[in-house]
Amino acid sequence: MNPGHMTGTDPAAGADSLGLRVARSPLQDALTLSTRPGIISFSLGFPAPELFPSKEFSRACADVLGTAPHVLQYGEPLQRLKYHIVALMRTRGVACKEEQVFLTHGAQQGVNLLVTLLMERGRQVIAEEICYPGFQHVLRFFEPEILPVPTDFATGMDVDCVERYLVRGARPAFIYAIPDGHNPLGVSLSEEKRTRLLTLSQAYGVPILEADPYGFLSYTDHPAKPMRASSEDDVFYINSFSKILAPSTRVGWLIVPERLVAPLANLKEASDINMATFAQHVVARMLDVGFLPSHLQQLRSEYKLRRDAMLSTVTTQLPVATQPTRPQSGVFVWVQLPEGIDTARLLKVAASEHQVAFMPGSAFSLTGGDIGMSSIRLSFSFSSVERIEEGIRRLSQVIASAISHRPG
Amino acid sequence: MNPGHMTGTDPAAGADSLGLRVARSPLQDALTLSTRPGIISFSLGFPAPELFPSKEFSRACADVLGTAPHVLQYGEPLQRLKYHIVALMRTRGVACKEEQVFLTHGAQQGVNLLVTLLMERGRQVIAEEICYPGFQHVLRFFEPEILPVPTDFATGMDVDCVERYLVRGARPAFIYAIPDGHNPLGVSLSEEKRTRLLTLSQAYGVPILEADPYGFLSYTDHPAKPMRASSEDDVFYINSFSKILAPSTRVGWLIVPERLVAPLANLKEASDINMATFAQHVVARMLDVGFLPSHLQQLRSEYKLRRDAMLSTVTTQLPVATQPTRPQSGVFVWVQLPEGIDTARLLKVAASEHQVAFMPGSAFSLTGGDIGMSSIRLSFSFSSVERIEEGIRRLSQVIASAISHRPG
Repeated sequence: MNPGHMTGTDPAAGADSLGLRVARSPLQDALTLSTRPGIISFSLGFPAPELFPSKEFSRACADVLGTAPHVLQYGEPLQRLKYHIVALMRTRGVACKEEQVFLTHGAQQGVNLLVTLLMERGRQVIAEEICYPGFQHVLRFFEPEILPVPTDFATGMDVDCVERYLVRGARPAFIYAIPDGHNPLGVSLSEEKRTRLLTLSQAYGVPILEADPYGFLSYTDHPAKPMRASSEDDVFYINSFSKILAPSTRVGWLIVPERLVAPLANLKEASDINMATFAQHVVARMLDVGFLPSHLQQLRSEYKLRRDAMLSTVTTQLPVATQPTRPQSGVFVWVQLPEGIDTARLLKVAASEHQVAFMPGSAFSLTGGDIGMSSIRLSFSFSSVERIEEGIRRLSQVIASAISHRPG
Repeated sequence: MNPGHMTGTDPAAGADSLGLRVARSPLQDALTLSTRPGIISFSLGFPAPELFPSKEFSRACADVLGTAPHVLQYGEPLQRLKYHIVALMRTRGVACKEEQVFLTHGAQQGVNLLVTLLMERGRQVIAEEICYPGFQHVLRFFEPEILPVPTDFATGMDVDCVERYLVRGARPAFIYAIPDGHNPLGVSLSEEKRTRLLTLSQAYGVPILEADPYGFLSYTDHPAKPMRASSEDDVFYINSFSKILAPSTRVGWLIVPERLVAPLANLKEASDINMATFAQHVVARMLDVGFLPSHLQQLRSEYKLRRDAMLSTVTTQLPVATQPTRPQSGVFVWVQLPEGIDTARLLKVAASEHQVAFMPGSAFSLTGGDIGMSSIRLSFSFSSVERIEEGIRRLSQVIASAISHRPG
């Protein structure tokens, strides 16, 4: 016990190089902000709590606990839930087998496990330059070579750009795509582009990670099918019950080729043991009683009203803004404000002086730089039509004031 | 779309090098075996399902869902649950603050996050040569230099060996220890060794990972305190509600120095978003009503009966065996059979011909080789006294037959 041996090194020093030392993530900040009394928050993709199926939840808990104490025991991932997921996917035009369904602790874990399975340190990845931060958060552990792709606000990912990378010899671990209700852009990938992307994936042997957390919240009569509907070998599909039942259950799923299930199970075992959680039993029981189709109908119709309210208020109240994106699915609208406005700064004023919050576009930039700096993401799922109208009015004041103070 | 570009590479090829391709893990095999009708399984550390607090669970679900729909929403890790954990730890002699409590998706996730935070590829680690496979499963991703330590079956980890490594210049990322109800050995670390290990940890600036999933299940009047009771800076403590409430809830916790909480939160956010799960709300509600102390009393008294039954039956029925370890905590007994018996093979005969199952010792070997090859781990928590007696009788037949057929 020679004190001369003391290293004095911080045991978690390795965390530094990965940027893990940041005191709080943007998500954590937004979460805290969203719960501040009086604020109207368009920050996060929160579902409407008044639409949570609390009664069905409560009944399912009582049912599974009353009839089967083994629901509290360790157990293999729940086959009954896989059965329901196969049926649910069929409603989106996706044919899959229970053996291809892999249950996760929410969609984020699905992203994490798939990226961990497919990546090696420093390998190439194709992804949109504006995309879901939870994906970026996983990716950075692998110090990847990112091949960024722009996104068209009407038709989605620039597939020509994807093709150029591949033609020039890029062989990324995967292409990451959010074809419906894109987070944060609110855009849907056109059917023509889905077909082309899939053809590229197959021709070059590069799988597509298809993240679809908002796909069941569609506001058109004939939404496009997920890419997984057209290929069971090349598309690895990620979804969860967070937006269609409730987030706090943390039950998600992957649809993957059967050969990937065993390695994913081993990865998940290292992560959290990979046992059937109580929540898996409860969700399966809820689906047993068949209430989901009408619940989805209700969500779609209410969220459609909120989307329409947000689009019309943004259009009338924020005349200086570029047209907002017009989502056919999901819960997000993306608005480009006049160039030169730093929306991260704007948020501080908006939250503290006008009691309204949003996500600054820079939070979604894959490669940093100025991308998204003057844009904002607005979520319309969490607020009533009245609150949406009031919130956008507040926002218009913040923006007007920022413009009048703009240098130059 | 030149087919000449097709690589034909399996996208998950990288998984191979990490041994992720094994069709099924030993845990998955044991789980399947344990649920086979008619079998008496001592394989897994399953709690007794008849002691699950199903009623309290059911009431807590109804309470939280009835009064507060936000329990289904995204939300920050639950402060109320941290409050309860601080109180619970106090009953073990550990003083900690809510700011030092980090909530996890079960103890396995706690191990995963801490190891990920502390490790760098190829770094040294000190751990017992026979230890929990879930820890080993996480560790191997980092291709560590393992410094293995033997374990004394009466007093625990060989602390002299730990000291020799450190004196000779080893600077591992951490020392991994399971001081109470060791999995798989069933041994408890002596108080004297706890003190010495802590002194070494402090002198050399090497933190201790103290895994304590069985610590609340103690069968003596004055159990030793966890090492975390003596140091809040050098010991990172891991536990969960799996063994004291129910495994399927997947709610666990870490007690760590406050400076590690932010980087752990960022790691968990990448893993599964790090939101308050429904299960966190339910567990907090269960603890609100104050039933845990009497529940723990009941678990300890019933498991003590089962332990005694197993020890006496093993001693009388397996006369050829080395004395079993005599656990003061936890749910495991370790039995060394006569040398030369391959218990992995023995399990196949035991399960198929005698309807009894156990974990072969080799499943716990950190460094491979012959360690544990002739030993078995028996869990006494899952079976009634009658089933324990019957199961050990069956086992004695399997062993007698193996000995009579032994070559040489």
